Amino acid sequence: MFAILADPVDHVRTPGVFNAWFAARRIDAVLVPIEVPPAGLAALLDGLRAMTNLGGFVVTMPHKTAMVGLADEASRTAQLIGAANTVRRDRDGRLIATMFDGEGFVAGLRSHGHEPRGRRVWMAGAGGVACAIAFALAEAGVGRLTIHNRTAAKAVELAARVRAAYPTLEVAAGSAHPGGHDIVINGTALGLHDGDALPCDPAALRPDMLVAEVVMQPETTALLAAATARGCRIHHGIHMLDEQIRLMAAFMGIEPRA
Amino acid sequence: MFAILADPVDHVRTPGVFNAWFAARRIDAVLVPIEVPPAGLAALLDGLRAMTNLGGFVVTMPHKTAMVGLADEASRTAQLIGAANTVRRDRDGRLIATMFDGEGFVAGLRSHGHEPRGRRVWMAGAGGVACAIAFALAEAGVGRLTIHNRTAAKAVELAARVRAAYPTLEVAAGSAHPGGHDIVINGTALGLHDGDALPCDPAALRPDMLVAEVVMQPETTALLAAATARGCRIHHGIHMLDEQIRLMAAFMGIEPRA
Repeated sequence: MFAILADPVDHVRTPGVFNAWFAARRIDAVLVPIEVPPAGLAALLDGLRAMTNLGGFVVTMPHKTAMVGLADEASRTAQLIGAANTVRRDRDGRLIATMFDGEGFVAGLRSHGHEPRGRRVWMAGAGGVACAIAFALAEAGVGRLTIHNRTAAKAVELAARVRAAYPTLEVAAGSAHPGGHDIVINGTALGLHDGDALPCDPAALRPDMLVAEVVMQPETTALLAAATARGCRIHHGIHMLDEQIRLMAAFMGIEPRA
Repeated sequence: MFAILADPVDHVRTPGVFNAWFAARRIDAVLVPIEVPPAGLAALLDGLRAMTNLGGFVVTMPHKTAMVGLADEASRTAQLIGAANTVRRDRDGRLIATMFDGEGFVAGLRSHGHEPRGRRVWMAGAGGVACAIAFALAEAGVGRLTIHNRTAAKAVELAARVRAAYPTLEVAAGSAHPGGHDIVINGTALGLHDGDALPCDPAALRPDMLVAEVVMQPETTALLAAATARGCRIHHGIHMLDEQIRLMAAFMGIEPRA
């Protein structure tokens, strides 16, 4: 048994993706959705510690940040980012948390032929997913990283945190206009709901840009539609999840890491 | 989301039965196995109270007795029997427990043409399932009820409890020889494992007897094989579960009770 923790859980696609992955490999396992409000998370985790047929679980909004403190152990990556999206349940009931959002996103870019090393990257968002991606892009050796957030102070703070860990990287908070960058990333939840604002000014999109999403549903967000209309290459949110499956499965002991 | 709580959980057939039932009715729900040791049950229940997409769960060995005290509310039937096998999670997180083992077993007999009213019934066992069946048989108006248990004191005690609730019923503890009865019931777990002792003396089985099981796996237990060899009609353990599905589903709010 595996699970995904979210609130709300309706929009979550992880069970379908994991269960197809299990079925294709004839693995006798299932991943199910667990909806739990923030106030109930600690109690739920005590319950999952007691569940001896649970191998681990995926964690998504709004629980990624709280999970670092509530787990019995958190990886260096999870501590650096301050968020976790994967938890392994050891046989003694201990919960070990780590974060694959950033590593999965970068692996998705690479598996689709988009090497980020040396590229100028603009990213919207300074929340949990965006933070993980920022650190993974820094680790991947991007040439410049500009972070835009509606609450500008959060972008400034994230840029400072990344700079502290990667002092030679040119990283700064920036405006909603991604001009002068090679890769444009939506690292916010904007696009999940009809009528959401666009995460960047679409007038600034140029045909030589790659526009990448973290939002998985709808498959083609308003941002990706605008990018296509302006001649950009696009990169769907699902790729980050696809690449994370391997990483998460190995971490939770489902299959040895290849 | 629905679940079954057990320890161990490997032999449990409830998920397959419920999930086929959901699929046949195009109900977007799934029932999954949760393995939890007795020491972890209270913590697990606090976790399930926090799980807002959980509709309820089935409870089986070894948790049926503890569930009556740990639930927020228990039905009159569950309190009388001292055990529960079905728990509904209300929207406010309260857990409401009841017991359908007995009602399901009697409904299974009836749906296969075996009306217990007025019949002389011999039953092995005085544990949770046997207790539920004893009260349901009493409620169904059997003519006589004889209860046999390897620890005889438990049979004497159960007979006294049934007699207290149904003072006009002829109910007593008895030997391993079911002679003089119309219906022979195994209400123990004997037969689940290879090499288990038979729950009654097979030499006492007569062709006019009905021999009924609560053990579901293997489908044909050693008792049912012995009964067939001696010309008895037999009644499989799965029928009790089949009939309970309707009752449990209605109680957990999956479908209105027909």
